[in-house]
Amino acid sequence: MKERIIITISRQFGSGGRNIGKRLAKALDIPFYDSELIDEGAKESGINPDMVRDMEETPTNSLLYSIATNAFFGTGHFSPSVELPLTDRLFLAQSEVIRKFAAQGSCVIVGRCANYVLREDPDLVNVFIHRDFEERVNQVSKLYDLPRKRAEEVTKKTDKKRSNYYAYYSDKNWGQAENYDLCLDSGKLGEDSSVALIVDFIEKRNLRRRIRG
Amino acid sequence: MKERIIITISRQFGSGGRNIGKRLAKALDIPFYDSELIDEGAKESGINPDMVRDMEETPTNSLLYSIATNAFFGTGHFSPSVELPLTDRLFLAQSEVIRKFAAQGSCVIVGRCANYVLREDPDLVNVFIHRDFEERVNQVSKLYDLPRKRAEEVTKKTDKKRSNYYAYYSDKNWGQAENYDLCLDSGKLGEDSSVALIVDFIEKRNLRRRIRG
Repeated sequence: MKERIIITISRQFGSGGRNIGKRLAKALDIPFYDSELIDEGAKESGINPDMVRDMEETPTNSLLYSIATNAFFGTGHFSPSVELPLTDRLFLAQSEVIRKFAAQGSCVIVGRCANYVLREDPDLVNVFIHRDFEERVNQVSKLYDLPRKRAEEVTKKTDKKRSNYYAYYSDKNWGQAENYDLCLDSGKLGEDSSVALIVDFIEKRNLRRRIRG
Repeated sequence: MKERIIITISRQFGSGGRNIGKRLAKALDIPFYDSELIDEGAKESGINPDMVRDMEETPTNSLLYSIATNAFFGTGHFSPSVELPLTDRLFLAQSEVIRKFAAQGSCVIVGRCANYVLREDPDLVNVFIHRDFEERVNQVSKLYDLPRKRAEEVTKKTDKKRSNYYAYYSDKNWGQAENYDLCLDSGKLGEDSSVALIVDFIEKRNLRRRIRG
């Protein structure tokens, strides 16, 4: 693919969205970035996401952590960056990393509100992957070797976290179709065909862009 | 297409969703039903949707209308159907028509909560069509020859009506990706490619169903 394209993937927990993103990047022969890589990048900018691990993708309790962190980092000097709650500073650091990735050229980015962070980018394609709840619980139970009840809890909780995180930073509804260019039920297609359908969407979109100039 | 398939299309006002549905039905060589045809069918069951025109897709004021209608139809006999607000009786009549259409075989149905009415049908594919608000207002302004400000009002109001109507009967969020199999931004593809992408989705879905048995 010659044209620059930045594909962001948002996904329900257990929908296979991360895998689909990884395989999509391979199919298009462009880099793939996920939350772990974004966090690695954030470390370089001075925030250690491991420290924020427990609040990952939850803006709640940020005041408490902020107070704790200010006490820890406290210098006595006024600094706007220290004034911000730790989760917000992490979000800003992650956003910087996401923008750096996108500046390097075409890529697939999964998670971390990338579709919001890059909302002004004209080459953006935003995808949302979802799947039937019971099917996702089955997947989670198998993949993480969890009893069904526990898998249910983890699935619900992770989606809730992602939804809150997205709503907090973007002021939009996570999983609302109009916030994405394409949304699909991965359970209806399977991973191979989900990747192929996204490629089809991108080709059709690029064709229209070329025609419209 | 040999396999029975029932495709429902929900759409934002001005997104071109109805046209896409019509062209999809033509591409698949199956019947197309829209709100008008559903309303025609409902007339046969004794409810005249013209009488309910003003409250179309709005459950509000149904009590008032119900009282007015009871006074009008009032027989003095107890009848559960007369007890129901008029909008609810219309919904039930429309639902009957939708089920009758689906029972006749493969088809495309646009509007009237068909994806909720037919939710138990195993051959259902639910599609949601949306588009950038400004682009939709442009379309509405051109199509209905309205000044821009008025086109904006009509677009917002019609979406609000559809959203309320869907939430009232289905208890789910209109336009929430997980309530559909496929959602797409028709502005990114244009009508031709939107139809082609839905066909591609259906072929991939049917392939998976055949493999899984």
